Amino acid sequence: MEYIHGGDAFRYAPGIIDFSANINPLGTPPEVAAAAAAADIASYPDPKSSALRSAIAEMTGAAEDDIICGNGAASLMFTLAAAVRPRVTLIPEPAFAEYERAARSAGSEIVYYPEDGISDIAADAADLIFICTPNNPTGYLTGRSAVIAAAERAAKRGAVVAVDECFNDFLDCPERYSVSGLTAEYKNLAVIRSFTKMYAIPGLRLGYMLCSDRELTGRMYVLRQPWEVSAPAEAAGIAACAAREHAVRTREYIHAEREYIKRGFDRLGIVYREPSANFIMFRHEPGLRERLIGRGILIRSCAGFRGTGGGWFRAAVRRHEENALLIKALEELDG
Amino acid sequence: MEYIHGGDAFRYAPGIIDFSANINPLGTPPEVAAAAAAADIASYPDPKSSALRSAIAEMTGAAEDDIICGNGAASLMFTLAAAVRPRVTLIPEPAFAEYERAARSAGSEIVYYPEDGISDIAADAADLIFICTPNNPTGYLTGRSAVIAAAERAAKRGAVVAVDECFNDFLDCPERYSVSGLTAEYKNLAVIRSFTKMYAIPGLRLGYMLCSDRELTGRMYVLRQPWEVSAPAEAAGIAACAAREHAVRTREYIHAEREYIKRGFDRLGIVYREPSANFIMFRHEPGLRERLIGRGILIRSCAGFRGTGGGWFRAAVRRHEENALLIKALEELDG
Repeated sequence: MEYIHGGDAFRYAPGIIDFSANINPLGTPPEVAAAAAAADIASYPDPKSSALRSAIAEMTGAAEDDIICGNGAASLMFTLAAAVRPRVTLIPEPAFAEYERAARSAGSEIVYYPEDGISDIAADAADLIFICTPNNPTGYLTGRSAVIAAAERAAKRGAVVAVDECFNDFLDCPERYSVSGLTAEYKNLAVIRSFTKMYAIPGLRLGYMLCSDRELTGRMYVLRQPWEVSAPAEAAGIAACAAREHAVRTREYIHAEREYIKRGFDRLGIVYREPSANFIMFRHEPGLRERLIGRGILIRSCAGFRGTGGGWFRAAVRRHEENALLIKALEELDG
Repeated sequence: MEYIHGGDAFRYAPGIIDFSANINPLGTPPEVAAAAAAADIASYPDPKSSALRSAIAEMTGAAEDDIICGNGAASLMFTLAAAVRPRVTLIPEPAFAEYERAARSAGSEIVYYPEDGISDIAADAADLIFICTPNNPTGYLTGRSAVIAAAERAAKRGAVVAVDECFNDFLDCPERYSVSGLTAEYKNLAVIRSFTKMYAIPGLRLGYMLCSDRELTGRMYVLRQPWEVSAPAEAAGIAACAAREHAVRTREYIHAEREYIKRGFDRLGIVYREPSANFIMFRHEPGLRERLIGRGILIRSCAGFRGTGGGWFRAAVRRHEENALLIKALEELDG
């Protein structure tokens, strides 16, 4: 298996600044880390993560039975694909590589659509349609009305629309773009969200899916092993649901730093896609990634993302002093 | 999803003594718990669990690349079934319910064989054959020579023999029954082992599989999400590999307590299957489980195990004072 994702800083020198993973630069809230460390590891976890689903229900307004938790959002994508058994899956381009891997593991054919083209897709094109908003790595936002229209067209042929909102939390105004409140109304809408990024717990593996098609989520439970979510992950998730102030503070911080990086890029004449969340995709010379590693900075090459072409990179928005180092390194390379 | 396993003590009164899950009564070694609590949860886990595989390689003698780790042994069973894509899977009767669920999730037909009948199976009977030794819930041991013969016959038609050794660690002499040292020689042999039981970490989810068919394990990596094993699970596993004295001490303790429970059952005239590991299967009146719950004791009904018939139960071997309470409760019910 070739490792194709960001977040592989463990392969590099200790102390390298990791811009390759889009993790909250303010870190893990102490109460979330404490909950994980205090979890009862000597008992089997609850296969239905009932306490966590109850906390998520309160946070999101969704019914408890419309929530299914998983060993990271990626795991839910694989189980969803296995449960839908699509003949054809529609995937935006560019996009997170796991949609394609999940669909292929379920034996599906893949058809790509441009990330801004969801409205042009024919109603009979697929059994499973992935939408990622904000999209990773571009930051492109698909509006709620476009998602709703896609769900309505898909419903006519029993297709499922899976909306990946794993980075929604980092938008200036998350509610304006989220469709997580619409799953009761649109039964073929599955909204996948993650605790990983906002609460900086990628090591724990925890995501959830909102979907009111209980026949579908029931099949997901049948198709996977019973103890999918670990005890530390469940405990951390419950604590995270209560840590809303952390998310508010993070959004403010990310907004200011995103603007700071944009100003730096503008000054250096670096071309970038308008960012919306906690990462920014920009163009530079091929080989930039390797040159920055030499300076103790790890960014993500977008070469692994279909449809981005060469010379595109992704950098996470990190702490101010780290973002300043990134801009300085780029300035020196360009000079 | 109906919950069919032991270990669901969380559903009952706090303080109930849980004989329903076969977990080491000596608990989690402190260094294992400490390693889990100190794990770096703010970084993505290594998708290949390289540090853990290295520790397992040292412990088992297997090559690092012949080891694949998973989110609990059950998860590996599902991924293995998905990678083998069997048309027919052979499963012992009675057996752990996840073999059947894993095989069905891969679209396989199931054929059952009596747990003592692996030698009578025709060579062309299946694409995937599960063997569980010691078997859960009976304690039945399949000898090494029978496993080897099955692997040789299966190899002729490219079938995989998956040996579940999750309870091997609790045998008086584990080496005498384990085939984990034979995976280099028999390429179609996959040995699944768990850290869950011996190190009392069911809440963390960690198992591993030994198999030298790297094409097969490569397919398993492709078919699943990349971050299957959490950071706390990997850290705990590494610490567990170094905690060998814990296993030695546990085997002695379990041996003595198994004999104590047997003497109690003999005295009460309770019929049981000869136990070999850290649990004992015995016969009693239907309804015993519910009656014992009323006395603060949770045992496992074997009704969920195919082929056990009614009136069979399974109790874990626990700490001496707890085992004494179980015997006392059974004595009072019988009296």
